[in-house]
Amino acid sequence: MSAARHPAPAIARAFAPATVANVGCGFDILGFAVAAPGDEVIARRCETPSVTIACITGDGGQLPREASANTAGAAALALLAHLGDPTGIELELHKHMPLGSGLGSSAASAVAAVVAVNALLGKPLARNELLPFALAGERVSCGPGAVHADNVAPALLGGFVLVRGYAPLDVVPLPAPDGLYCALALPDLEVRTLDARSILPRSIPLRDAVTQWGNVAGLVAGLLLADHALIARSLRDVVVEPVRATLIPGFDEVKRAALAAGALGCGISGACPTMFALSDAEATAARAGAAMRAAFLAEGVDCALYISGVNRAGAQVLPPDAK
Amino acid sequence: MSAARHPAPAIARAFAPATVANVGCGFDILGFAVAAPGDEVIARRCETPSVTIACITGDGGQLPREASANTAGAAALALLAHLGDPTGIELELHKHMPLGSGLGSSAASAVAAVVAVNALLGKPLARNELLPFALAGERVSCGPGAVHADNVAPALLGGFVLVRGYAPLDVVPLPAPDGLYCALALPDLEVRTLDARSILPRSIPLRDAVTQWGNVAGLVAGLLLADHALIARSLRDVVVEPVRATLIPGFDEVKRAALAAGALGCGISGACPTMFALSDAEATAARAGAAMRAAFLAEGVDCALYISGVNRAGAQVLPPDAK
Repeated sequence: MSAARHPAPAIARAFAPATVANVGCGFDILGFAVAAPGDEVIARRCETPSVTIACITGDGGQLPREASANTAGAAALALLAHLGDPTGIELELHKHMPLGSGLGSSAASAVAAVVAVNALLGKPLARNELLPFALAGERVSCGPGAVHADNVAPALLGGFVLVRGYAPLDVVPLPAPDGLYCALALPDLEVRTLDARSILPRSIPLRDAVTQWGNVAGLVAGLLLADHALIARSLRDVVVEPVRATLIPGFDEVKRAALAAGALGCGISGACPTMFALSDAEATAARAGAAMRAAFLAEGVDCALYISGVNRAGAQVLPPDAK
Repeated sequence: MSAARHPAPAIARAFAPATVANVGCGFDILGFAVAAPGDEVIARRCETPSVTIACITGDGGQLPREASANTAGAAALALLAHLGDPTGIELELHKHMPLGSGLGSSAASAVAAVVAVNALLGKPLARNELLPFALAGERVSCGPGAVHADNVAPALLGGFVLVRGYAPLDVVPLPAPDGLYCALALPDLEVRTLDARSILPRSIPLRDAVTQWGNVAGLVAGLLLADHALIARSLRDVVVEPVRATLIPGFDEVKRAALAAGALGCGISGACPTMFALSDAEATAARAGAAMRAAFLAEGVDCALYISGVNRAGAQVLPPDAK
């Protein structure tokens, strides 16, 4: 299995982007990748068998250094185990986004790790075949609940990705229109994914569920028909957002500001507290982002901002010496 | 408003097709039209002001003859009121499908009525502008609950139609792939729409709702990407079908028979008891239909059968003397 189809280098470097999951009404099923920020992983062959984590930057010392407990390490281990490959691998993980912010930080690390390790081994697997191993890494950071693929899949494949179901895993890339831009407002708040899950209702009114899946259908149709107005009408979450918005001081004001600035829609990214706004032009995304940041600041909450296009390329192998 | 853009004839005749609403996972939001069966309405100018129902055939005497209480009559009245048109109109309604069977019988009558009356008046409105008036007719037969547009919209517009929401009404035609065929098995059972609604749960587990909107997303994507396998994986209803299937003797056997015969999916049409199966070839639809009918007969339930293509044309004005 590990026979190289490509020359196997001594070092490989990969980038995987941040992702917005739970897009609007698409809780647990829809995510998309942005161009920035993103994590990098460098993989090197080494004498020590198995996987070791040589260094992690950008995490403030918060992430586990033991490979099996780290999303990047666990993803690399799962891939090597599948390939039956005894190569010893040393990983560097360079994080460029905050942890627990709702940007798919653990997914980006897991995806960058499997893409880097696959490149180091001469690309024995195609990119989409790497998904289960990135998911195995994501599982490490998910706690006892079910693992979700709506960050990992777009981080790997780019663009908008539907995770239709899990038994078996059914991942459907959705060809989205050109020209969609995203503003990400990262408030200086920490919300643990587990907290954001624990406040969700266990059951919901059928009426709300119907409203939600009408909007899900509209959002998917809007993306595939390149109908920006339909995307805007459909980017509404009547189930999860009303509950999780309570975890974000200033949520209503931030959302109102984004829409007033011309965004197609605005909502919570992943499991909080980052908020995203989708726009049909880069200038609009920049205006929406600035308005969102100003609304957070008015609430006394500091806020980082990213403006970028939807990332259609997904995870990438980089030259080893790329800056 | 009633100034004719087209020559206004003394008589006009229209056809509107049966429709499958609640398609698979798309409860209350997704419907499609079939080529047959369908209802016909003939509209004639007359001296008596307002709308009268001259005759109804095919209803076994069950439908109200008073225009305001009849879906076709009420739809015609709503259209005339909107146009401020004092023309006296006499309607003939020829029903070619059983009432209360889950085929959108009342929607077909309401749509045929507005299309015929609009033609009689020289087409003052475009076809898609007729939707609210057909919906006003549908309201007459819906009982006290909210009226739904997932039969009326595809009966009028043809093809697959998403009803994203109602406030305001947002109807989105979904360009579906060529070559989809439908088998309709109409068991000789009567289930009142109100009964079928009353057994629905008022709330559902969030987990099931997520499964459902994942399937809704997959079904819409499958239709728009012409991905038959994705349509097949997504035509699954974990919310409404398990409840309503109890109203249909032999449901499990009929569904199993349709899938074994090669149908992409099989489920309940509208609010029971008709069952539909969608296939990617006419021969497969015919096989699936025969298998469904045999399964009903094995349960001691007589069953009528229709095999037809998905009707992309929707309601049509017919020559007045068409057979």
